[in-house]
Amino acid sequence: MDYELAVIGAGPAGVAAGIYAIRAGISTIVIEEKMVGGQIVISPWIENYPGYENISGMELAEIFKNHLKKYVEPHELEPVKDISKTEDGFEVGTSKGKYEVKAVIFATGATYRMLNVPGEKKFSGKGISFCATCDGFFFKDKKVAVIGGGNAAAIEALYLKNLGIDVHLIHRRDQLRAEKTYQEELERKGVHIVYNTVVCCFNGDQKLESIELKDVNSEERRTEEFNGAFVSVGLVPNTELAKDLGVNLNDNGYIKVDDFQRTNVKGVYAAGDITGGARQIVTSCAQGAQAALASTEVLGKQYPF
Amino acid sequence: MDYELAVIGAGPAGVAAGIYAIRAGISTIVIEEKMVGGQIVISPWIENYPGYENISGMELAEIFKNHLKKYVEPHELEPVKDISKTEDGFEVGTSKGKYEVKAVIFATGATYRMLNVPGEKKFSGKGISFCATCDGFFFKDKKVAVIGGGNAAAIEALYLKNLGIDVHLIHRRDQLRAEKTYQEELERKGVHIVYNTVVCCFNGDQKLESIELKDVNSEERRTEEFNGAFVSVGLVPNTELAKDLGVNLNDNGYIKVDDFQRTNVKGVYAAGDITGGARQIVTSCAQGAQAALASTEVLGKQYPF
Repeated sequence: MDYELAVIGAGPAGVAAGIYAIRAGISTIVIEEKMVGGQIVISPWIENYPGYENISGMELAEIFKNHLKKYVEPHELEPVKDISKTEDGFEVGTSKGKYEVKAVIFATGATYRMLNVPGEKKFSGKGISFCATCDGFFFKDKKVAVIGGGNAAAIEALYLKNLGIDVHLIHRRDQLRAEKTYQEELERKGVHIVYNTVVCCFNGDQKLESIELKDVNSEERRTEEFNGAFVSVGLVPNTELAKDLGVNLNDNGYIKVDDFQRTNVKGVYAAGDITGGARQIVTSCAQGAQAALASTEVLGKQYPF
Repeated sequence: MDYELAVIGAGPAGVAAGIYAIRAGISTIVIEEKMVGGQIVISPWIENYPGYENISGMELAEIFKNHLKKYVEPHELEPVKDISKTEDGFEVGTSKGKYEVKAVIFATGATYRMLNVPGEKKFSGKGISFCATCDGFFFKDKKVAVIGGGNAAAIEALYLKNLGIDVHLIHRRDQLRAEKTYQEELERKGVHIVYNTVVCCFNGDQKLESIELKDVNSEERRTEEFNGAFVSVGLVPNTELAKDLGVNLNDNGYIKVDDFQRTNVKGVYAAGDITGGARQIVTSCAQGAQAALASTEVLGKQYPF
């Protein structure tokens, strides 16, 4: 046994899991394919993690990393290739080696689908966002586009509208996929729905200023000014490794966990965006902490509450 | 309607609820009987809230308070006297007034029972702790007393033992109330159990140095050196107001909530220590955030995920 616990992923959930695990006396390896911080690294400003009124994602990631390093040195830039069951635990194979462990916490996150149009990467975090709960407040009383047509897009649009934002829901088809109740609510709340329209590109200088749109029927292009855009065309949980271990997913494709972040596979836990839900930094951290504490139960240690 | 939402209590759960509620466009009053921060105010050092490697509870409370004040001015030193149902919501009566609201989040915490012996208050946070998960790591490789004899005390003792701490479980009776499996585990792990013994007083200069103990049979007193003491004689959730509203509790006396922090009463949510569980700052914050987001569902707003 190389370590008692492997934490896969070092976003907020993985960082908290690492801190809590070591503090609970669990020998732990934290493995991250990119850098510590996960998705927060690309957030320009974070205002809703309690204790930090306003901080860049890069800065908070650095703070998280230093906090984690007080307890354990994370393995960065080390993608996990495969995880398999062994007689009394799991073998985690990475780009750099193999580790025998007794418990695994999946904190591998989820990836937002992008439109893949010019300007989208450039203005991500500079007017373009993928999460209304995270960034909506920055656009209070301004004008934003929500791009998408499913339930998620409708919900994001309604959430933003409720903040007093002038919301334009842009959808490529002639009707939304969102459920009827959402459609009625969009109408009642005064969200502008722009059908049959796709985004050609996002424009601006330092930040997003306008969007070039195309009517898919007439092929006509026009440019409209927007303060912000929320791309809501899907979120893909990174569950490949977990599925290989036989971990059950819920109807939305996220890992199914109980109140203690346990999956259906003994010794396997999951925390953060990979489990769906609120997908906030603070909820991910809490789940990581909880998963680490719960993992004591398979390590011959006392579960602390 | 004076406010859409009342948050009762401004510890970590209430602070996060307030921040998230306002950011979700919910008009909110946050009411606290003492000061913002709740129980963390008395923690001398906090090392496990991700993002703060080492901070005093008082300092973190101040940071939380300032964060909250960016969104809403908390009503401090305003105890809530009663809450009653109205036609379309609730009336919250405090020492200073009455507020009509549509939704309520209980974040009133829990209170640790004390032994009420000399030195206990003086050394609280200076060697005396009430939470092993919170403070155990500070005593790594040292000698501590755990005072109590129930399951909670046994669990705390085992958790501490696992950190390489020399643990002495001090109990006033000739046998523990803790379940047999815990008792066996205590023995297997090498926790010293000191039966028929009570604490007379805690002694030290700046911090706890020794405990004066009394054998209840022989009445003999002796003083033993300890680096720390964990008092584990009960935790009382502050559920009085919630019970008056018909909120259901679980078997341990905590408020029963679902994954979205809903109670059984529509429009009433609960977050933090009052719901039991891990009782960590980060888990309380997460629950507060979650409760605030969920409360949108009774406010004619769109639940954001």
